[in-house]
Amino acid sequence: MNPTPTPADITAEAAPPSARAEATRARIEETAERLFRTMGYQKTAVADIARELGMSPANVYRFFASKSAINEAIAQRLLGAISTELSAIARGPGAASARLRLLMSTVFERQSTVFFAERRMHDMVAAAMEEHWGVCERYIDFIEATIRQVIEDGMNSGEFARTDPALAAENVMHAFIKWTHPVLVESCILRKGETVEMLRAQIAAMTDFVLGALRA
Amino acid sequence: MNPTPTPADITAEAAPPSARAEATRARIEETAERLFRTMGYQKTAVADIARELGMSPANVYRFFASKSAINEAIAQRLLGAISTELSAIARGPGAASARLRLLMSTVFERQSTVFFAERRMHDMVAAAMEEHWGVCERYIDFIEATIRQVIEDGMNSGEFARTDPALAAENVMHAFIKWTHPVLVESCILRKGETVEMLRAQIAAMTDFVLGALRA
Repeated sequence: MNPTPTPADITAEAAPPSARAEATRARIEETAERLFRTMGYQKTAVADIARELGMSPANVYRFFASKSAINEAIAQRLLGAISTELSAIARGPGAASARLRLLMSTVFERQSTVFFAERRMHDMVAAAMEEHWGVCERYIDFIEATIRQVIEDGMNSGEFARTDPALAAENVMHAFIKWTHPVLVESCILRKGETVEMLRAQIAAMTDFVLGALRA
Repeated sequence: MNPTPTPADITAEAAPPSARAEATRARIEETAERLFRTMGYQKTAVADIARELGMSPANVYRFFASKSAINEAIAQRLLGAISTELSAIARGPGAASARLRLLMSTVFERQSTVFFAERRMHDMVAAAMEEHWGVCERYIDFIEATIRQVIEDGMNSGEFARTDPALAAENVMHAFIKWTHPVLVESCILRKGETVEMLRAQIAAMTDFVLGALRA
């Protein structure tokens, strides 16, 4: 019933145990991320990644179906790391307003580090937004849920007025788009000549404004 | 001292009086806008505009240096018309909060009509944002000044708390970017599948939120 195995099938069956496979996946991701950041995503081929690792392109394809799949894994890891930090801030000590302030500035600072190189957005970020919107959307949803959690804490402690926390979190997300949407951040910096310091001051002003609305 | 006039100089000297020139300019703009909207900006050549008007391309070039210059004039006219309407709202009767609400929804409604065709942004709008950012920037500055004027009215009447009106206006501008930036509006509709009705509901929610902040 089954077709005769090809050499690739044999190789696949001889695959190393899971832990070693995981280590190889991680090495491929790390090498690919470095090349995407330095050479550019569009200019990097799977063959370049394989050469850097001293393995064959066929071996890379055993772990990832395509360059795009490698980029998806990188996006998941990077956004996952930011999410973990945001979650810790949200569940941390201190007033809800202080946590919300730290949350919004951390989103900007971490994303700026991950998304940009010398003011330009990495083309790997643009590709991820184009090809793996689901990953981006889950990250956005996670941030909104995290904001909502802090807002609920503030409502429960009496720091914020009691309103619909889901709607309040949505409003806060919308109010901060200028500094969370990579395309807008790039356009502010490249086109409007705004500096990172200016953007930080705007975020601080918006945080004061939003806290006023939440307390109202 | 002066070089011998060329035929083009003669034509220029024989130019019709100003009122007639203005009428021709307006006809060129109107025809170009119609072609840009139906055929697309990139696909429309100055020769197409001239043919529609029954004049020579050379005659069009007597009025506009390039297709881009025609598009700039169109952008100025369209954004100028919206600005006039916004100005009337800001200086109109009623509470500052009601005027601010009408202002923000009118920006969205008018821009949606002018910028979009069947959910996609016109390429003439994209070209204007790329090539004539100064025109766009003056329009953005005008909206911010108009918002500031209404906020000052509200502070003077005691409707809003007294704070720095310029900073408050900047915060309001930032808070509404999702529904005023054409690239974001397009991406909400095309990528995230949000409907115009959903965007209107979000604008209404953000207006309530912002008014809470202004009153705080």
